[in-house]
Amino acid sequence: MVEKIYVTYNDVHKLCQEAGPKILSTFQPQLMIAIGGGGYVPARILRSFLKQEGGPNIPIQAIGLSLYESLPHITGSTEVEVPGTKVTRTQWLDLSSLGQMENLVGKNILIVDEVDDTRTTLDYAVKELEKDVEAARIRMGLPESEKTKFGIWVLHNKDKAKKGSLPTDMMEDGRYMAARTVGDVWICYPWEATDIDEHDRLAAEARKNGNPTSA
Amino acid sequence: MVEKIYVTYNDVHKLCQEAGPKILSTFQPQLMIAIGGGGYVPARILRSFLKQEGGPNIPIQAIGLSLYESLPHITGSTEVEVPGTKVTRTQWLDLSSLGQMENLVGKNILIVDEVDDTRTTLDYAVKELEKDVEAARIRMGLPESEKTKFGIWVLHNKDKAKKGSLPTDMMEDGRYMAARTVGDVWICYPWEATDIDEHDRLAAEARKNGNPTSA
Repeated sequence: MVEKIYVTYNDVHKLCQEAGPKILSTFQPQLMIAIGGGGYVPARILRSFLKQEGGPNIPIQAIGLSLYESLPHITGSTEVEVPGTKVTRTQWLDLSSLGQMENLVGKNILIVDEVDDTRTTLDYAVKELEKDVEAARIRMGLPESEKTKFGIWVLHNKDKAKKGSLPTDMMEDGRYMAARTVGDVWICYPWEATDIDEHDRLAAEARKNGNPTSA
Repeated sequence: MVEKIYVTYNDVHKLCQEAGPKILSTFQPQLMIAIGGGGYVPARILRSFLKQEGGPNIPIQAIGLSLYESLPHITGSTEVEVPGTKVTRTQWLDLSSLGQMENLVGKNILIVDEVDDTRTTLDYAVKELEKDVEAARIRMGLPESEKTKFGIWVLHNKDKAKKGSLPTDMMEDGRYMAARTVGDVWICYPWEATDIDEHDRLAAEARKNGNPTSA
């Protein structure tokens, strides 16, 4: 049986609180990109801990990426989800609001998601975003030193064989950050809980039993 | 002194849980539009309670609207926020992923935000979204009966004079929904808390004292 770990909202909040100063001291992001739906909650909380006194909020752009394909169900209008390895975009950067892609050249951009499981989604996000900003840098005739720097922050990285890969310089420069590294466990996030009191009870029980994987 | 109410993450979760079946029975949304940053957390949680067994997740598109303008600070690169009544788009619908606006014609779309304060942001969101889908309906030559129906769901509506207004038919049809109506109080949401344990303590204290405005 796969081990389950229960993460409470306050655990998520405290992981963001712990991460804020570290991210500010090492990476200083100018834009956050939240991968929805799992990245919405951590990105919003993290924004509170990246705000510096007197400074503006770091803007968040949400993108939607799905590892599942919806296939039409044979019996009618309802659809069923079939797991796949194909990443589907359900939302991308909005250039009509951001301004042209050129505005992102040379910036530090932090991609936020809840979990790095097979790394497929993050691989897709980084490659596609880099492609867009690199094309803009070349259009502008700017040198390699003006490359946009992408960073990643996730609540949990699962220590397992990954299907996707991330740029070597990102890993070496410490621009890949996970608040916690866990085994190949089943992570129960609070926003998926049907009964949040029971969820919290199970989280507290695991903590009492010295479960090292909880926050 | 303005009264403060403290809303915990579990309060937010339970308000979404309570709302899910009601929204499904009256409005059956096919798309959610989360107004960021405040709408990110409730929209993600609500999605869990709008999912029907065997059915797909309701897709979420995030839009970014800001009631504040960032003015360049006189001393340098930092910026200060100046409250204003101008709504600025920081992100809008991504039609490259959604497909053309025509896909939204005739659909039920639920707009989600954390709070309806002066109603300025919601007024802007509904008017601008209606403008876009109405233009598409007319391009398609479809009758008025095929109009897109917008609904609104917020965690809290403040019972106060509003600067913005919403369509009469939306109010009459019950497509404007607030989980709780509160006075003109200062609502402290958990994702803004610096100390989440202290935040929860203040929420519990208010509840013990029979504060009727908490969840």
